[in-house]
Amino acid sequence: MSPLHFYFDFISPYGYFASLRIEELAARHGRTVEWHSILLGVSVMKVMGLKPLLDTPLKGDYVRRDVERYRRQHGLATKRTADHPIMNPLTCGRAFQWVKANQPQLAVPVAQALLHAHWGEGLDLSEPDSLREVRLPAGIGADWLVEGAQSPEAARLLRSEVDASIAAGIFGSPTVVVDGEMFWGVDKLDTVELWLQRGGW
Amino acid sequence: MSPLHFYFDFISPYGYFASLRIEELAARHGRTVEWHSILLGVSVMKVMGLKPLLDTPLKGDYVRRDVERYRRQHGLATKRTADHPIMNPLTCGRAFQWVKANQPQLAVPVAQALLHAHWGEGLDLSEPDSLREVRLPAGIGADWLVEGAQSPEAARLLRSEVDASIAAGIFGSPTVVVDGEMFWGVDKLDTVELWLQRGGW
Repeated sequence: MSPLHFYFDFISPYGYFASLRIEELAARHGRTVEWHSILLGVSVMKVMGLKPLLDTPLKGDYVRRDVERYRRQHGLATKRTADHPIMNPLTCGRAFQWVKANQPQLAVPVAQALLHAHWGEGLDLSEPDSLREVRLPAGIGADWLVEGAQSPEAARLLRSEVDASIAAGIFGSPTVVVDGEMFWGVDKLDTVELWLQRGGW
Repeated sequence: MSPLHFYFDFISPYGYFASLRIEELAARHGRTVEWHSILLGVSVMKVMGLKPLLDTPLKGDYVRRDVERYRRQHGLATKRTADHPIMNPLTCGRAFQWVKANQPQLAVPVAQALLHAHWGEGLDLSEPDSLREVRLPAGIGADWLVEGAQSPEAARLLRSEVDASIAAGIFGSPTVVVDGEMFWGVDKLDTVELWLQRGGW
């Protein structure tokens, strides 16, 4: 069976929340997951012409409250909230793409480690050297990752992934694509599960 | 116990979908529902500064598909799709407010009748006279409703309801407010139910 495609931005709390559930959800239905890091700064702001979510009147306030409510509901001990200044997601995105291209079997553990360091521990991972503070999975050297994240090849890989995501119609984090069917938002994960159970409708 | 507050726009398919579930959901937890008709044209476009949903690149295409998928999932026989030209919601909003002010016990049945006529039967209810085509609940005369919907009082009531909704932070259709806690989107109805079961978290 084809893999689920999981699109997320490292700066998106909802993307982080979904990252904690997507692997088990897929495994319950015998599926694997391919992870794709996107940049909302490109899709939302440049392509859609919208303001950042938290700067949107009314909606920004709602999102701050909704994120906290989700965190409480699921008992997550996050140190960073939606109110913190948003970090630059390029370093994490490039580091992830670098691993995905060069050590693909460790791409998901690296993404999980970066997301946990940022959201769970509250680290700002804007600068390549900050990756040294992340507890990386065995098999990933910090020097190798810091260097890779700064390579032109990593920048090119991320640009290409973001372009492909926009061409595929992806506009939000998280988005899950199952057999060509797109589901946007962590609120849709239960619907994704139902879709897998029933084989669609 | 305090009532649930249900905010919807007559032009919103997701508002229609939620309208079919909200009364039973509330009743299961011994709650009543107060319905509020809002105008996304005011909250989304004027206050938030956003484009209409269906005209937003990427998201518009997603919404068309998501609405159809919800319809299939819930076995709804709607004649109007998200692709139809959007009707002017003022007539329905004003008619609803008119009934809410003058025959409050029939406000919800009238809202349900208007929503069904528009989404279920596909009628365009932009013009006051089109209300004559709606199968109205017993106790509501078509002449009385058509006249009321055109009264300055109905226009004033709707404006006031929309202003109050924006002051309360409401920005989308549907939104449900439970004991001061706001939930946006038909995808959140299961979370609303959980919130009522647990008494919050």
